[in-house]
Amino acid sequence: MASAANQVFIAVVGAGGVGKSFLSQLQALATRRPSPKLTLCYISTSKKALFNDDYSEISIDTAIDALAASTKTPPELSQVIEYLAAAPAKTILVDNTSSQDVADKYPLALSRGVSIVTPNKKAFSGSYQLWKDIFIAATASGAKVYHESSVGAGLPVISTLKDLVDTGDKVTKIEGVFSGTMSFLFNSFAPTEGQGGKWSDEVKKAKALGYTEPDPRDDLNGLDVARKLTILARLAGLPVESPTSFPVQSLIPKELETCTSGDEFLEKLPAFDTQMEETKAAAEKAGKVVRFVGSIDVAANAVKVGLQEFDRSHPIAALKGSDNIISFYTERYGSNPLIVQGAGAGGDVTAMGVTADLIKVISQFS
Amino acid sequence: MASAANQVFIAVVGAGGVGKSFLSQLQALATRRPSPKLTLCYISTSKKALFNDDYSEISIDTAIDALAASTKTPPELSQVIEYLAAAPAKTILVDNTSSQDVADKYPLALSRGVSIVTPNKKAFSGSYQLWKDIFIAATASGAKVYHESSVGAGLPVISTLKDLVDTGDKVTKIEGVFSGTMSFLFNSFAPTEGQGGKWSDEVKKAKALGYTEPDPRDDLNGLDVARKLTILARLAGLPVESPTSFPVQSLIPKELETCTSGDEFLEKLPAFDTQMEETKAAAEKAGKVVRFVGSIDVAANAVKVGLQEFDRSHPIAALKGSDNIISFYTERYGSNPLIVQGAGAGGDVTAMGVTADLIKVISQFS
Repeated sequence: MASAANQVFIAVVGAGGVGKSFLSQLQALATRRPSPKLTLCYISTSKKALFNDDYSEISIDTAIDALAASTKTPPELSQVIEYLAAAPAKTILVDNTSSQDVADKYPLALSRGVSIVTPNKKAFSGSYQLWKDIFIAATASGAKVYHESSVGAGLPVISTLKDLVDTGDKVTKIEGVFSGTMSFLFNSFAPTEGQGGKWSDEVKKAKALGYTEPDPRDDLNGLDVARKLTILARLAGLPVESPTSFPVQSLIPKELETCTSGDEFLEKLPAFDTQMEETKAAAEKAGKVVRFVGSIDVAANAVKVGLQEFDRSHPIAALKGSDNIISFYTERYGSNPLIVQGAGAGGDVTAMGVTADLIKVISQFS
Repeated sequence: MASAANQVFIAVVGAGGVGKSFLSQLQALATRRPSPKLTLCYISTSKKALFNDDYSEISIDTAIDALAASTKTPPELSQVIEYLAAAPAKTILVDNTSSQDVADKYPLALSRGVSIVTPNKKAFSGSYQLWKDIFIAATASGAKVYHESSVGAGLPVISTLKDLVDTGDKVTKIEGVFSGTMSFLFNSFAPTEGQGGKWSDEVKKAKALGYTEPDPRDDLNGLDVARKLTILARLAGLPVESPTSFPVQSLIPKELETCTSGDEFLEKLPAFDTQMEETKAAAEKAGKVVRFVGSIDVAANAVKVGLQEFDRSHPIAALKGSDNIISFYTERYGSNPLIVQGAGAGGDVTAMGVTADLIKVISQFS
């Protein structure tokens, strides 16, 4: 076994789209940079796990197949954490799930010296108590916790906000389009040029293209955006209690909240197209377009998520495809914000944020 | 004296606009984060220096006044580096000058274990040999070298490009407006709406507002943009020999190259307004506007700087004030680039990039 100082153990939880992209990036990274030696010692899905009691290496490039062939079921997470904490070198837990159960264990992992890298929003947008527990545990043990991809996937959003705050700038407002799904829907439904389609047709098209969750209501309820706003607001210094503690506009008609399936919802949605059509027409009358945005007014301690009208020439109106855009208004940057824009979803760019975080954590080990 | 593991010595070279903003951010940082203890042990301008042989602390908040009152002249840079290398804890040299002489000493500093943080473009855009020497020295000693503010001031440009490359993405093209001066000039001279002023009037206005160098030709010759492109191209993997080894369009009329002063240049410039007026009119005829941009085509190994026409709805055309915009086209991001936009010049935002880099280097010490 290599010497502890020159080795880092990596445990991966979750092997879906992001998990697979991450493993492929990890494999390439380990090849390009032989030092420190990156040793995959644990990988699991919700059903299966793969690890060796003596921490011997799992080959990264065959890990997915080996995991599928494994007969082990995943141990309790607290046991996994003890296993990692007892490893003969520094360890990083890469959480590629969107599980609240895994997120709830971050304080334990961090307190045991296990660093965390993750795109999972749940830990940072759940209860404010969990948020505090995570950072208190990290400060106490010196373990690191990085979560760039929890907002805007691989776009430099979290790191930029942290740099602004850490260098003493005063963030006054954060505003943007934080959901690739919502971006695609409104760029098609209410384009800056041309007519756009019917709302229900656009929702169906987005689902067919794989731009929505399996049940589109999980996008349309606004909670995903509310979670991202919660994270950014907390980083900007606001003690937001939870993603449901501020106004969030849901685009699910009240009458369809009780549908028992996404399919039933999509079938009944056309009957409510006139509501969205009226919203669009009202904006058009004012020479504007409607967009689904989130905003944080730091001074007023006000966070909100919902529909808003924008001039056609506004960067938020001019967005393309399923891109995200995030504008940071600060004291130093004055009236023109610092803007970050680009794809905010997708396995490869989400994994990129995770891998970049991993590199940053490792650079602090040596 | 605090224990070495919990202390970092900081030497600052340069005390102009950026240097002063940096010191004020450093003071605030040291107050907010008492550990590790940040000890300012050296500060100098080209004429004066302030330091104590026993490395005892220089008070940050009175450093500028104390430096002005100092009777010491700056020692040779190589002596300063030896002084820092012999300090009883890790040291960081913050180069807030734009001096080639200081830049030339980076390999020596890094080889002696002194880390470097700087907005100075000269080291990274000079000869390719100097570039190689810097990173070879850093790799060998483990000392760090960070230079976010060398392109786009505090905007996350260098860090974003590094993350893309380090995680294995393939950057295909980088394009943008890299000069606040050029941005302001063309946003006023050829606005997307309305007429815009005469070219020579806009140059005079930009100078009056402090948006140009004392001699505006230092902006109009395109070399500042060429230096930034050189840095980004090298980070993207192209072995660019120097900022004059690729096509750079100068906006200084040939006949005015020999003017002996910026004032003489400004006086004679109106006689050449028709040249720029024709360029603007040609773009307008095609429904476009003209902008001064830099671009790097990685596959074609082609870097160029100069005037280019853009559709009025293009993000580069729609830029405001003196903002920069940088678009990264990559394999993972596909047809819609990752875009970073905002103020790319000014003491406070430049110093912000320096301070953020300093924080990152310090985080790798503990």
